[in-house]
Amino acid sequence: MIDYRSDNTGRAAPEILNALVRANSGTALGYGADAWTARLQDRFSELFETRVRVFPVATGTAANALSLAAIAPSWGLVYCSEAAHINTSEVNAAGFFGGGLKLVPVAGKDGRVDAEALAATLAAVQPGAIHRGQPAAVSLTQASDLGAVYPLAEIRRVGEIAKSRGLKLHMDGARFANALARVGCSPAEMSWRAGVDILSFGATKNGGALCDAIVVFAPELADGLAVQLRRAGQVWSKMRFASAQLEAYIAGGLWLRLAQASNAAAARITVGIAGVPGLRLIAPVEANELFLEMPAGVMDALEQGGFQFYRRSPTLARFVCRFDVTDAEADALVAALKRHCAAPARAAE
Amino acid sequence: MIDYRSDNTGRAAPEILNALVRANSGTALGYGADAWTARLQDRFSELFETRVRVFPVATGTAANALSLAAIAPSWGLVYCSEAAHINTSEVNAAGFFGGGLKLVPVAGKDGRVDAEALAATLAAVQPGAIHRGQPAAVSLTQASDLGAVYPLAEIRRVGEIAKSRGLKLHMDGARFANALARVGCSPAEMSWRAGVDILSFGATKNGGALCDAIVVFAPELADGLAVQLRRAGQVWSKMRFASAQLEAYIAGGLWLRLAQASNAAAARITVGIAGVPGLRLIAPVEANELFLEMPAGVMDALEQGGFQFYRRSPTLARFVCRFDVTDAEADALVAALKRHCAAPARAAE
Amino acid sequence: MIDYRSDNTGRAAPEILNALVRANSGTALGYGADAWTARLQDRFSELFETRVRVFPVATGTAANALSLAAIAPSWGLVYCSEAAHINTSEVNAAGFFGGGLKLVPVAGKDGRVDAEALAATLAAVQPGAIHRGQPAAVSLTQASDLGAVYPLAEIRRVGEIAKSRGLKLHMDGARFANALARVGCSPAEMSWRAGVDILSFGATKNGGALCDAIVVFAPELADGLAVQLRRAGQVWSKMRFASAQLEAYIAGGLWLRLAQASNAAAARITVGIAGVPGLRLIAPVEANELFLEMPAGVMDALEQGGFQFYRRSPTLARFVCRFDVTDAEADALVAALKRHCAAPARAAE
Amino acid sequence: MIDYRSDNTGRAAPEILNALVRANSGTALGYGADAWTARLQDRFSELFETRVRVFPVATGTAANALSLAAIAPSWGLVYCSEAAHINTSEVNAAGFFGGGLKLVPVAGKDGRVDAEALAATLAAVQPGAIHRGQPAAVSLTQASDLGAVYPLAEIRRVGEIAKSRGLKLHMDGARFANALARVGCSPAEMSWRAGVDILSFGATKNGGALCDAIVVFAPELADGLAVQLRRAGQVWSKMRFASAQLEAYIAGGLWLRLAQASNAAAARITVGIAGVPGLRLIAPVEANELFLEMPAGVMDALEQGGFQFYRRSPTLARFVCRFDVTDAEADALVAALKRHCAAPARAAE
Repeated sequence: MIDYRSDNTGRAAPEILNALVRANSGTALGYGADAWTARLQDRFSELFETRVRVFPVATGTAANALSLAAIAPSWGLVYCSEAAHINTSEVNAAGFFGGGLKLVPVAGKDGRVDAEALAATLAAVQPGAIHRGQPAAVSLTQASDLGAVYPLAEIRRVGEIAKSRGLKLHMDGARFANALARVGCSPAEMSWRAGVDILSFGATKNGGALCDAIVVFAPELADGLAVQLRRAGQVWSKMRFASAQLEAYIAGGLWLRLAQASNAAAARITVGIAGVPGLRLIAPVEANELFLEMPAGVMDALEQGGFQFYRRSPTLARFVCRFDVTDAEADALVAALKRHCAAPARAAE
Repeated sequence: MIDYRSDNTGRAAPEILNALVRANSGTALGYGADAWTARLQDRFSELFETRVRVFPVATGTAANALSLAAIAPSWGLVYCSEAAHINTSEVNAAGFFGGGLKLVPVAGKDGRVDAEALAATLAAVQPGAIHRGQPAAVSLTQASDLGAVYPLAEIRRVGEIAKSRGLKLHMDGARFANALARVGCSPAEMSWRAGVDILSFGATKNGGALCDAIVVFAPELADGLAVQLRRAGQVWSKMRFASAQLEAYIAGGLWLRLAQASNAAAARITVGIAGVPGLRLIAPVEANELFLEMPAGVMDALEQGGFQFYRRSPTLARFVCRFDVTDAEADALVAALKRHCAAPARAAE
Repeated sequence: MIDYRSDNTGRAAPEILNALVRANSGTALGYGADAWTARLQDRFSELFETRVRVFPVATGTAANALSLAAIAPSWGLVYCSEAAHINTSEVNAAGFFGGGLKLVPVAGKDGRVDAEALAATLAAVQPGAIHRGQPAAVSLTQASDLGAVYPLAEIRRVGEIAKSRGLKLHMDGARFANALARVGCSPAEMSWRAGVDILSFGATKNGGALCDAIVVFAPELADGLAVQLRRAGQVWSKMRFASAQLEAYIAGGLWLRLAQASNAAAARITVGIAGVPGLRLIAPVEANELFLEMPAGVMDALEQGGFQFYRRSPTLARFVCRFDVTDAEADALVAALKRHCAAPARAAE
Repeated sequence: MIDYRSDNTGRAAPEILNALVRANSGTALGYGADAWTARLQDRFSELFETRVRVFPVATGTAANALSLAAIAPSWGLVYCSEAAHINTSEVNAAGFFGGGLKLVPVAGKDGRVDAEALAATLAAVQPGAIHRGQPAAVSLTQASDLGAVYPLAEIRRVGEIAKSRGLKLHMDGARFANALARVGCSPAEMSWRAGVDILSFGATKNGGALCDAIVVFAPELADGLAVQLRRAGQVWSKMRFASAQLEAYIAGGLWLRLAQASNAAAARITVGIAGVPGLRLIAPVEANELFLEMPAGVMDALEQGGFQFYRRSPTLARFVCRFDVTDAEADALVAALKRHCAAPARAAE
């Protein structure tokens, strides 16, 4: 079996679990008042080239929903892509933690919010209208839920639009590392320097184990968020075991190496299948995911051949590359796709 | 330094971290659809001698708040001890996840709800009254937040009262293992057989690392709770790393050995300080905590001597024993208390 | 000026205010424990030919949101039309009072939910999936927000689909009277006999003043709803002044006469403009509203001629008839539309 | 029967209903965009000698809960009297609308918050602590729920303490008029000049019918509150019928005359029963309520004699005077109390 189902089906990077095990020494105050968590503040501040507050949380859903609750009032509207994970897959967690805030999909390509569509949407909002909520924030998913990546200029443009209307900017960085590896800029450039106020900093999908993080660039948000996290049951009493994971994740560039590896596997497959008849990528492969239209029969054949992946529709398959996908596994998928697409009629029977 | 601050300042049992590391092999479906989590259902069902649903969660606060939200409507009243952790220390998480439900303290001794006081409180509620909410559930903390333990008969009595009024029964078992070790009964006897519908099953305070669990005995609650947990950001995508911890925690009776060790340390200290003038336990030591009244000067002297503990008031100190407190450490505390209490006046200067 | 902006811009029927004034005599217990509110229970039970509980509330938004909160858990999905008032105009009140529940638009014509589209949507829901919430209820708007009316068979079909999946059925009857006048059936046939569990019973838009109501057909919902209403600040202490309005509203068929009058005005206009070039009704006129596509210039000319109405888009105008629109006013609108459409080019200049 | 049960059992002042009926003329835009509501802004701004925003709402519970939600974050703590209506009688509406905020009772006499007790409570809060929520606001009930009135200096002192800690100040003025009549100052002095940021402005208990109001002194709160009110179902579409009531309520000092009348009745009874053996007022009678301890037998005898009142405990009776209590009714109560207290032993048989 070769597993392309998700990046959350995979192993954790051994460095991260080793750090967790090493943290199991001596006693330490609970709820984040420990040396590991203090050090994490410094490491992330260095990484982002500004003083940040970083809060380990159990999941990306918690990171997203509590970030949005921190930047939008309960009657706020948060603009995002129709395809955004917060909109499609998190059971309205943002609406729950946000006390009733509402997500408003904005048009765009490849799972992204289009900046000008956002501007137009905001321009159409009537000031003082009380029937639909008030514009409060924008959320960008980087990389997008269709495997595309916002270029810096696009983030900055969204940031400008948001700021000009008094809106806050959130980035769902469940695959922040993959996007960063793609863009090749600094973490600062892809976040606060582009206007991001608060970042869901993903680790789990990129070799992490049991935690992600919220990175707060707008300092006035942090104290309230700390209480909200405590209330949300997202503050471990033995926090050191979470902080140690995150510290190891970014130490020595591990996170970027992991992301480069999964991106590279996706790129290798993309190159390999170029020109294969019957296959169509519905979005550019800019991170570690491929969304491939193909005949249903090809999907059947792939599954019979031991490939695991997610069927998004009868003719759309998603392949996600983990950091530990080997070249041989990538090449095996390419070969299988070529083989089955060469005989799609038969496979479909 | 000898640390008696809390059981969450301590290490995890190595067996638990070893299991976590061992789970880092191969791929597995996310969000609990993995073999570890499936096996956990079986292990806990065996442990509790009935078919249960067990949900790993990040923290005890999540376990408590989401359990209560599962058994009480948003306009419900949940009866608990004034001293209950859910009432004093969890930022109204129950009220938040419960959509506005309200905790109502009930009188009782030693951090426990008194069954007859509960009955009297319920008897005074006017049927149909709309101004204060409707009685919905009772929550017992076992062991209590003052280190006492409910005997089985008392839990059963509360269970009967609750059932007779249509109320559900929750148990906050952050220290369930310590209570079980004390009472010496089976997990089933101390939970569903005594009327408990849903249990916050603590592991962190007793040698766990990054997860606790909710154990559901009332099967009709489980499906809705599963969605609520997902929305709460309490369902890890790499769930196997949590389930593996919990499986190791109960495997071969580890959890009970750990609890017996911490209980024994507390008992050893209790015996050691019996009759020492100037010291007064405000509640019986039935688990792993001591709440000791003493002159402020004695507290100062202890701290100067390298002991760490929590000052609950100027004259009340809390000492919590972890599973790895040694006899020597226990004896050192006893000796120091004896020494300082023999000269309290001087210490207070 | 002739006002077609909304049915909420209009006067109250004098009978209703007279009843309110007559209620101002003697003393009466607060919060609904008065003779007027008790009598209201009987009157509505007679009207609906079954024992109902009726709760006066301040607004239709309160009626809708609290009805949905009563029939759906906080993690529930409520299916409705894209055009439904609860979806477009009530600031996510349903999501707020429902503790995070989410509205899911279902395809359909003329502002209605299509029963078969609903069935298909429900059939595609995976049992046990935790990422999107659980199907909980359906909400139909009768008359629809585009002025169309569900025939009885369609409501029954939706009711069957809902029941077969364990879902509850809500009807937003902000214009229940208009729909009833159109269909010509009994209130029972258009509600509980067709599967409706809970009804937002509108009065304000049809000659009421300061209250609407929730009518509960599923008795087990009523006690909890009563507490929720109290918490929502929707239980007047001097409830008699609300109950008296509702009693007068239905007494002697007043409500139906009012609805017949506004329906008749809309029908008169519809007949009058038949065949006028440049006008197109986007939905059948089955209640008291017309949604008319026309050139922007015609709208300008109408406004200059003293007509008030709501511009839904640059080429779509909404005209709402109140119960007190006169034949002369209706004919004046028809004449103006004919006149301006005969010379649309000039009007647009 | 002579009714002393509550001020909400009474009639509305005819002037208020007359105004409501007079508003039933012509058409007017919905949801507060009408001339009555615009004028109300001016009238209240004149009354309070500063530019205010005033929002009519259906009930005092709505006024309180939404005011608190406007000034406290969802993780906030709101300090109030143990006896405060928001704490005892509103089903945790503040916690519900506030998304989980928690009320914290503060010690004080006669249903009031003691300023120095508040200061001490706040001084004991540890900055940065995440386990209990963050201090956010104070709520004073004027007149108190035991019939006492805060003198201006006490409100100012609380206001200073609140401001010095960054807390907002809410006043529950369900009986604002009664307190104002007692203190004899201007509305401005008793509200924003003393530090009040937002006021629940009661009318119902003092001769109103179907609405109270929120008066916002901190302008930055108003726009968000407007949306919250819409979502809460507290914005009538035919708002003019509410605004007209409130305009009439304050026109020509009506509200103060009504309050003076009910206060005078309470004072007349207080004077009348002075020195009667067996009676004890548990709080000073400074508004329109008396809380009188008396033998249970006296209560029985009063009820048999046709007096209606509320039994707060077996030996505590509450008598509330409405604006239309006559001297004869007051004297009748005095006479009955004297008579029954002269023979309490017999009455108790």
